[in-house]
Amino acid sequence: MIGDGVIGYGYAGPNLVRNFSEVQGARVVAVSDMRSDRLAQVKRRYPTIRTTTDHRELLTDSDIDAIVVATPVSAHFDLAIEALHAGKHVFVEKPMTSSVEQGQRLLDFAAHRRRIIMVDHTFVFTGAVRKIKELVDTEQLGRLYYYDSVRVNLGIFQHDVNVLWDLAAHDLSIMDYVLSGIQPSVVAAAGIAHIPGQPKDVAYLTCMFNGNLIAHFHVNWLSPVKVRRTLIGGERRMILYDDVEPSEKVKVYNKGIALTNGPESKYQLLVSYRSGDMWAPQLDTTEALMLEALHFVECIEQGKQPLTNGSVGLRVVRILEGASQSLAQGGRPIELHDGGLLG
Amino acid sequence: MIGDGVIGYGYAGPNLVRNFSEVQGARVVAVSDMRSDRLAQVKRRYPTIRTTTDHRELLTDSDIDAIVVATPVSAHFDLAIEALHAGKHVFVEKPMTSSVEQGQRLLDFAAHRRRIIMVDHTFVFTGAVRKIKELVDTEQLGRLYYYDSVRVNLGIFQHDVNVLWDLAAHDLSIMDYVLSGIQPSVVAAAGIAHIPGQPKDVAYLTCMFNGNLIAHFHVNWLSPVKVRRTLIGGERRMILYDDVEPSEKVKVYNKGIALTNGPESKYQLLVSYRSGDMWAPQLDTTEALMLEALHFVECIEQGKQPLTNGSVGLRVVRILEGASQSLAQGGRPIELHDGGLLG
Amino acid sequence: MIGDGVIGYGYAGPNLVRNFSEVQGARVVAVSDMRSDRLAQVKRRYPTIRTTTDHRELLTDSDIDAIVVATPVSAHFDLAIEALHAGKHVFVEKPMTSSVEQGQRLLDFAAHRRRIIMVDHTFVFTGAVRKIKELVDTEQLGRLYYYDSVRVNLGIFQHDVNVLWDLAAHDLSIMDYVLSGIQPSVVAAAGIAHIPGQPKDVAYLTCMFNGNLIAHFHVNWLSPVKVRRTLIGGERRMILYDDVEPSEKVKVYNKGIALTNGPESKYQLLVSYRSGDMWAPQLDTTEALMLEALHFVECIEQGKQPLTNGSVGLRVVRILEGASQSLAQGGRPIELHDGGLLG
Amino acid sequence: MIGDGVIGYGYAGPNLVRNFSEVQGARVVAVSDMRSDRLAQVKRRYPTIRTTTDHRELLTDSDIDAIVVATPVSAHFDLAIEALHAGKHVFVEKPMTSSVEQGQRLLDFAAHRRRIIMVDHTFVFTGAVRKIKELVDTEQLGRLYYYDSVRVNLGIFQHDVNVLWDLAAHDLSIMDYVLSGIQPSVVAAAGIAHIPGQPKDVAYLTCMFNGNLIAHFHVNWLSPVKVRRTLIGGERRMILYDDVEPSEKVKVYNKGIALTNGPESKYQLLVSYRSGDMWAPQLDTTEALMLEALHFVECIEQGKQPLTNGSVGLRVVRILEGASQSLAQGGRPIELHDGGLLG
Repeated sequence: MIGDGVIGYGYAGPNLVRNFSEVQGARVVAVSDMRSDRLAQVKRRYPTIRTTTDHRELLTDSDIDAIVVATPVSAHFDLAIEALHAGKHVFVEKPMTSSVEQGQRLLDFAAHRRRIIMVDHTFVFTGAVRKIKELVDTEQLGRLYYYDSVRVNLGIFQHDVNVLWDLAAHDLSIMDYVLSGIQPSVVAAAGIAHIPGQPKDVAYLTCMFNGNLIAHFHVNWLSPVKVRRTLIGGERRMILYDDVEPSEKVKVYNKGIALTNGPESKYQLLVSYRSGDMWAPQLDTTEALMLEALHFVECIEQGKQPLTNGSVGLRVVRILEGASQSLAQGGRPIELHDGGLLG
Repeated sequence: MIGDGVIGYGYAGPNLVRNFSEVQGARVVAVSDMRSDRLAQVKRRYPTIRTTTDHRELLTDSDIDAIVVATPVSAHFDLAIEALHAGKHVFVEKPMTSSVEQGQRLLDFAAHRRRIIMVDHTFVFTGAVRKIKELVDTEQLGRLYYYDSVRVNLGIFQHDVNVLWDLAAHDLSIMDYVLSGIQPSVVAAAGIAHIPGQPKDVAYLTCMFNGNLIAHFHVNWLSPVKVRRTLIGGERRMILYDDVEPSEKVKVYNKGIALTNGPESKYQLLVSYRSGDMWAPQLDTTEALMLEALHFVECIEQGKQPLTNGSVGLRVVRILEGASQSLAQGGRPIELHDGGLLG
Repeated sequence: MIGDGVIGYGYAGPNLVRNFSEVQGARVVAVSDMRSDRLAQVKRRYPTIRTTTDHRELLTDSDIDAIVVATPVSAHFDLAIEALHAGKHVFVEKPMTSSVEQGQRLLDFAAHRRRIIMVDHTFVFTGAVRKIKELVDTEQLGRLYYYDSVRVNLGIFQHDVNVLWDLAAHDLSIMDYVLSGIQPSVVAAAGIAHIPGQPKDVAYLTCMFNGNLIAHFHVNWLSPVKVRRTLIGGERRMILYDDVEPSEKVKVYNKGIALTNGPESKYQLLVSYRSGDMWAPQLDTTEALMLEALHFVECIEQGKQPLTNGSVGLRVVRILEGASQSLAQGGRPIELHDGGLLG
Repeated sequence: MIGDGVIGYGYAGPNLVRNFSEVQGARVVAVSDMRSDRLAQVKRRYPTIRTTTDHRELLTDSDIDAIVVATPVSAHFDLAIEALHAGKHVFVEKPMTSSVEQGQRLLDFAAHRRRIIMVDHTFVFTGAVRKIKELVDTEQLGRLYYYDSVRVNLGIFQHDVNVLWDLAAHDLSIMDYVLSGIQPSVVAAAGIAHIPGQPKDVAYLTCMFNGNLIAHFHVNWLSPVKVRRTLIGGERRMILYDDVEPSEKVKVYNKGIALTNGPESKYQLLVSYRSGDMWAPQLDTTEALMLEALHFVECIEQGKQPLTNGSVGLRVVRILEGASQSLAQGGRPIELHDGGLLG
């Protein structure tokens, strides 16, 4: 039975505590938060869970095997390092860290301490994204043309990160999974902050890959409507993933283009359209966070690497850092290198 | 009674001929096209309209007062210049020309010949866009935050222009009208051509304006679904313009953010959300092209400048040319100057 | 080459004239209407078509082989009889006649005169309905449970028939085709007229079939929104046909219920739910009225019975007459007999 | 502090226990259910709540002031009577009882015992329905034309009641509230049971009111899609209430018809259409069941009649009983009298 200690009972906290309480093989031992009113909520719902305003009590608690870091991004790195120091495994919210350099150090230290780091890339565990991954892996889309994502709504402003680090982090983690970790070679971003003293609230991110694949992300905290749409265009089929849809979240279109030689000469290329059926596969509706919690427990018990481990978290942070650099340079395209960033 | 001669009976031709035939005060005298099968269609539907494969017959026809140029973009400039030479007024499809330099010369020559040039920015004449313009002009949105447009579908490939010149031209003409001609200071674009030897079929265009306004355009010829959505975010209200909706194309959201000073100090800024009613104003459903044809006739008869005159057409071309330059330089942001382009 | 004469240039007239003008093997010789302004429209669009305010000129015209009756329902019977008298074939708008007795006489007379009667059940020729028919015929739905249709909008008031005869006639013709002519045994209807002196504008019709199949139709001229939805529930699969959808008009759901014996005894029946994929087959988008016109021409040339012949039209009228009788009796269920009506 | 005892921890139980636990002024003392596995769930989530398989322990518990009856409908009456006998107030799931006669006896006994009966007509407490009520009460719709409701999905089969008693009960409670308790004069229903030995799973209910108002309800446990739509047509405005919509659940259309005298004579009536703006008012999103729990507590403390008291519950049961009688008689319309049913 894995004992979990949760640091931070804000936006994600309640769902994390609920799932780690109910998941097979784990229990929540204690929760820490600096706001006592939040801790009172924990007490009322979970009388048996200890609460404290001092997270260090969790680190020294021998009943606790793993720390769940659910604080603002800026605190992820220090708390994760502390937890590893204390010999705990770590489950950290996305994005994993505030910089590539932090991320790399966290990976190295976790390896050194032989502890597991798992990043909360929730969408990777949804039935919809797992189905999309399966369709791409089995070549049903053919060569990929583009990956286009929109995630906008009248959203909660984050104070320590801009809208890219907050919202695009989700889509980058989905894309990383669907594309099996292939990294873009160049990223460019544009964005604006409309509220004095607040981070950028509207942003656009473009990723260029080798082999004619383009990816684009539109994120916005100031949209009157909630949109969660991803279009994935392939040579053979195309996918529309609409997460706002109550059902049929994933639609597969047997559409595309056909190339034929023109009448005049075999060098003349004619482009025609191929239209076919649409198909919405049934999706597993198990709560993603429950599968995640289960996976985390398994990885600890069997000492195996999580699907969304530190290296995955680092790849997402690398793109976000590149995007920030592009934003800082007025949208100049930035080349990404696995070693890090050489703009 | 204005006599019109239509050059080109392809995609736009049939609608143009129908509207210029039925509009008060005008008639279609002749249609030219290089494909005789197209001319046969004209004959069958309009037995009284003359047809020819040689457009010059239209230029020398004294019954013809105005030439409608409905050819591929690459031919717009030469045909418009020929028409002005022949003393005809010109109604030209969008985008007006293939370059700023062509556009400027066309303007100058039309002024010199004292003839009218009107660009077919159809959407400017729709009830939806006219209502949006009214809402923006009457300050109902407050200060503008962003202008975001998506125009994607499994589209007809143009062979002489890429997807930006084909599709974004519509949205740029709408934005130019809604923003009363304010020009962006910087543009950046990214795009890819997936079909060998064909123009770019997926592209993203960002426009930065002075005063914290950002505009973005997503155009795509390879989308499995048809999307025609524009989001306009303002300080007071926000608009969703969905042209695919059969009715309620324009939705006005009384939503936004409110800023208050935090409890600790008057320097601490708290961001909260303002949510209110949604309102879908009734829209005039008159066919836009009919209003356009009527406007063209009026401008000729009364010698007044069209709402979508050559200067307007030139502003749209200027942004498209800047976008092309950015594409050619791998997405580098390009500064726009009214005089033209100095990257 | 079949010569057509069209009587009535009102709501349906323009589409009928356009399609019968363009269809292979037919031409429109003349159009009659009592309103000369309507005839002026015909002249302007089709200078070669003769026009008259006296429909009898069409009946005596030897260039005319077939009469298209596109008048209000109350005139269908007399005009069709006149046309048959004059030796013409007949294409008549739906519903075929105002009563079963008229319909029966029309059939008998057409048989006696050896002329063809085709009823304009347009939807039967749409790609959507043809696909639904194919799915039902190939047993993909299994045993049918229910047929539920909604056709409402802010509609054009008919003055000679109520909303059932106007709108439900469409759905009854679709159902008759999909169910291969199986007739209900009992019908019941409820409805109300809200406008003094006008026919009923809201109505509900229920049809009971032998073998546990129920059909229901909701029609309404006073709805703020346009709805065109049909649900067909089967033992194996279920269909949602939404004619307002621009694409994916037909969705096939692999959903239903499964019956298993309970743990206690094999007599205890447990009902569980079966959920599977959804599939939207590609549909032929050829204009239905064009296929209809083609079919009418073929039937005349080859002397074969149309798919929507007089007997089909009569079956639809029989249900409508039963519905009217039920309405007149405050909603009392009415038994239908092939011979006619014995309430 | 009101002490609540909950009988039945099935479909509704968990939400009831959660809300009565969190609501100001009440606490859940004990829960009874015949299935010990359900009680184990209660224990895990609420370690402080007593559980028992014998509901009588709740009736004799002096800490319990009110009994929440959340069992199948067939048990409502006996348990409510027992609770009143024990001097407890009663909160009972909808529909209140299985018959008008039971309902009347329950009312009389509650009055005799001076105890409160509140029926769980949840929707009456939603922001959407409260807004609709406000619009109708303030005459913004004008004279009502029709009330049309559809509530269909692949639903949970009830074993003791048919789909009307299960689903239409919701809509009848909404209509009763919106129409301020006006009762229909005649009801007629049609329905079918497709599963051997199970209750009717598809049904249609029509209610006729004095003054040209018609109401209709479509309920279905075998629909592949979930629909929750109500159309309310008025002389001045019309409402579309779509409960599946994440936001803008209530849309108000300024649409209708206009009557004018025709040109010929002042006796000739012309019907034209009035189309205007659409408006979606902001809605209170407080959880309805929480407001209900609060209202129940207030009514007990202040000894006042609940908004959804026994008389309201009885009116809904009266229509359902009439519908069942109509179903039993093959759809024959049944007259309703306040005294009960005289078919």
